[in-house]
Amino acid sequence: MARADFLSTRLFVEAPLAAGAEIEATRDQANYLLNVLRKRAGDGLLVFNGRDGEWRAVVADADRKRCRLAVEAETRPQTPVPDIDFLFAPLKHARLDYGVQKAVEMGAGRLRPVMTRRTQASRVNLDRMRANVIEACEQCGVIAVPSVLETAEFGALLDRWPVEEPGRRIVFCDEGDAGANPLPVLSALPRGPLAVLIGPEGGFSEEERARLRAAPFVTAIPLGPRILRADTAAVAALAVVQAVLGDWQ
Amino acid sequence: MARADFLSTRLFVEAPLAAGAEIEATRDQANYLLNVLRKRAGDGLLVFNGRDGEWRAVVADADRKRCRLAVEAETRPQTPVPDIDFLFAPLKHARLDYGVQKAVEMGAGRLRPVMTRRTQASRVNLDRMRANVIEACEQCGVIAVPSVLETAEFGALLDRWPVEEPGRRIVFCDEGDAGANPLPVLSALPRGPLAVLIGPEGGFSEEERARLRAAPFVTAIPLGPRILRADTAAVAALAVVQAVLGDWQ
Repeated sequence: MARADFLSTRLFVEAPLAAGAEIEATRDQANYLLNVLRKRAGDGLLVFNGRDGEWRAVVADADRKRCRLAVEAETRPQTPVPDIDFLFAPLKHARLDYGVQKAVEMGAGRLRPVMTRRTQASRVNLDRMRANVIEACEQCGVIAVPSVLETAEFGALLDRWPVEEPGRRIVFCDEGDAGANPLPVLSALPRGPLAVLIGPEGGFSEEERARLRAAPFVTAIPLGPRILRADTAAVAALAVVQAVLGDWQ
Repeated sequence: MARADFLSTRLFVEAPLAAGAEIEATRDQANYLLNVLRKRAGDGLLVFNGRDGEWRAVVADADRKRCRLAVEAETRPQTPVPDIDFLFAPLKHARLDYGVQKAVEMGAGRLRPVMTRRTQASRVNLDRMRANVIEACEQCGVIAVPSVLETAEFGALLDRWPVEEPGRRIVFCDEGDAGANPLPVLSALPRGPLAVLIGPEGGFSEEERARLRAAPFVTAIPLGPRILRADTAAVAALAVVQAVLGDWQ
């Protein structure tokens, strides 16, 4: 996989990308490029739309409020999103934004909020989550833009899982599990589509945990001897899953 | 290792701990226990001091401003701090606090800020860092309290390393490294004292990177195909290092 150039400005755009295309930046993007970064006509940047790869573009013409970008040449071909779902009990406010950004960096392909018994957030702003996904892609060189799925309720999600996600294994971090090392458990799993499930602060309820441990499509992994906050557990779990079963291989 | 009870209030205290000891809570702790948590005489909590293990204590007597704790029985014996240093280019403000907390959760034994060429923070508040370490220990059940070492300058640190830290290997995350999977590299390392080094946002300079790659006591690891923010890289690196070489084994 070609490595991202992480010194260039990178913008997500909706428009199709091809050599010679001209794109009108959104008002926010124009403000960012012209007034924050002080780009001028002829200055370069990178653009991607999640479908057509990453392209080199230059500021074609600009005044203070609008900015057109001329697309020149492809810098990286489009890659598919990694086949790992990130299922997570939404945290509140800043920690939620943070967790979403982290999941994107760690290569989650689809993000889905899950309401559990101890979930603190009462409702989830999917538009804000999507904006955080885009921002993380821009900053971290991710051109395979993850999708954000509708919020699911824990019990209903597990009920429907075998039908809606046949063959996709859920890996969850079980604080009460014996042992500490996730690598042997992950190494023993067959290759296939995966989901990583992270519970809320305070963990799953005993009932939820029993439900998870009884489901044949669920595998529990430990994450060391210490208690991890939910957002730390998310990064740590995705790191070991990616290294053993995902695209770090 | 006995697992922490993570539903109880846990407080760090300076005083020695033993059955029958009585401890005066600090003013902040008394306020937290009495006015925030509304604990009353006879209510239980856990205390630790980083030397004598974790103990069950009860609120012995209290008015609105002061609070004495009676130490009853040991709940977990003291464990040594993991023999992993966390060397990190300090980030700014909230991300620094966050990174320190994460390093504690992930089992770093000593934390040391390192000033690199592209480090954004100009000076580091070690007292604040120490307070963040204590808070993370309290919240995450860590009774082996990591120490915070003086800030070091990158070049001087590497110059002195073989003399001051003989036999301690530095693992650093190299964005430009070939491949993506850290596990084979880590698996090939001999067991021994370790340090994990995380660069600043923007990465190490080319000169710094060359210096690291040339040092016989340094090992570069990749962390997947995506760019990771410095604080994400810290958790991901500590996860794979702990799983392969540390106390997740």
